[in-house]
Amino acid sequence: MALIRSAFQDELDGVSQSLVDLCERVATLMEMATQSILTRDLKLAEEVIAADVAVDDFQHDLDARIIDIIARQQPVASDLRALATALRMSADLERMGDLAHHVAKITRLRHPDSAIPAELVHIFTSKGAAAVKIARKTAVVIATRNIEMALEVEKDDDEIDNLHREMISALIAPNWSHGVETAIDLTLLGRYYERYADHAVSVARRVYFLVTGKFA
Amino acid sequence: MALIRSAFQDELDGVSQSLVDLCERVATLMEMATQSILTRDLKLAEEVIAADVAVDDFQHDLDARIIDIIARQQPVASDLRALATALRMSADLERMGDLAHHVAKITRLRHPDSAIPAELVHIFTSKGAAAVKIARKTAVVIATRNIEMALEVEKDDDEIDNLHREMISALIAPNWSHGVETAIDLTLLGRYYERYADHAVSVARRVYFLVTGKFA
Repeated sequence: MALIRSAFQDELDGVSQSLVDLCERVATLMEMATQSILTRDLKLAEEVIAADVAVDDFQHDLDARIIDIIARQQPVASDLRALATALRMSADLERMGDLAHHVAKITRLRHPDSAIPAELVHIFTSKGAAAVKIARKTAVVIATRNIEMALEVEKDDDEIDNLHREMISALIAPNWSHGVETAIDLTLLGRYYERYADHAVSVARRVYFLVTGKFA
Repeated sequence: MALIRSAFQDELDGVSQSLVDLCERVATLMEMATQSILTRDLKLAEEVIAADVAVDDFQHDLDARIIDIIARQQPVASDLRALATALRMSADLERMGDLAHHVAKITRLRHPDSAIPAELVHIFTSKGAAAVKIARKTAVVIATRNIEMALEVEKDDDEIDNLHREMISALIAPNWSHGVETAIDLTLLGRYYERYADHAVSVARRVYFLVTGKFA
């Protein structure tokens, strides 16, 4: 019995490690996507776009593995709850990969021009850095189940919201001179970063709930 | 044994019916949200905004029920797959409710003005109708597991994409006279309808996969 239990624990640890790997992966993809849009780097954008299939496959395999573990081990109570939560986390993380992919597609769409006017580069530099920081911290939260850090992720998200408001103010200012098409690109880009961070917060909250049994 | 199996089947049917109910609910919410934004109806918008908590609670209870069924019945193979898929569908449907809520919030933000200029009302009338049609059809797909209809949902989504392109063309046309702020609202609104329909398509695809074992 002790042996079986231990094998099961190994499987649970394996799921957790895969979630960490996926989270670090989508952090790196958003870092690359941000770099691509800030430097108009088409090659880097194409790398991010091409990586989306691998992220989808990784999630697909992970989900199949989770369902297989439930079928074989028939876990109850907290273990089952952890596995059901892992299914939701993998969906959040896969979506974060999609959003990095969306950013890279705007790099490609506007190439060789830049989607981001020079005076807004600092906002997107900060937005990208904040989003990647949140994702990397979320990977640590999954690995360590550190609930203080899970709460920090939630606070870090406020920075993205502040940057978003700053960007919108620039777009609707009377001296905005870059036209509607650029405003549309920036609105969508801003939304992608916001949603990316929202999904990371959602993952951190799920860890918080698993550990404490309470909502953050 | 036959009795136990039958009680389990009742539980699975109950989960399916709850997904249908949730899908019809978020279809009605998007219908109301669209009506609110087209007619600048603040009261209707507030109703949609207030309904979001009930949708979240409904999903939360449904998910708890699904996990409880898995824990008690320890289903294998196709039944377990159906229940895991139900968890994902409920997440898609809950998100559709969020997006109806986002539309209603733009009604409220711009009230008593309209977020939508007169010449674009026809596009959003069509977009709203198409989104609600897709959601209602998806409810039927969940209830009947009709795979031909699941494929139809995918095609219906093309209509939303076409309307989106038509809207973007209007926004970036040289004669656009409504300024950047309106363009931002319409870009986000367009995105909400697109994502709403994407989630409905995702639900229909999951039904297709459950029935056929293949991806649509």
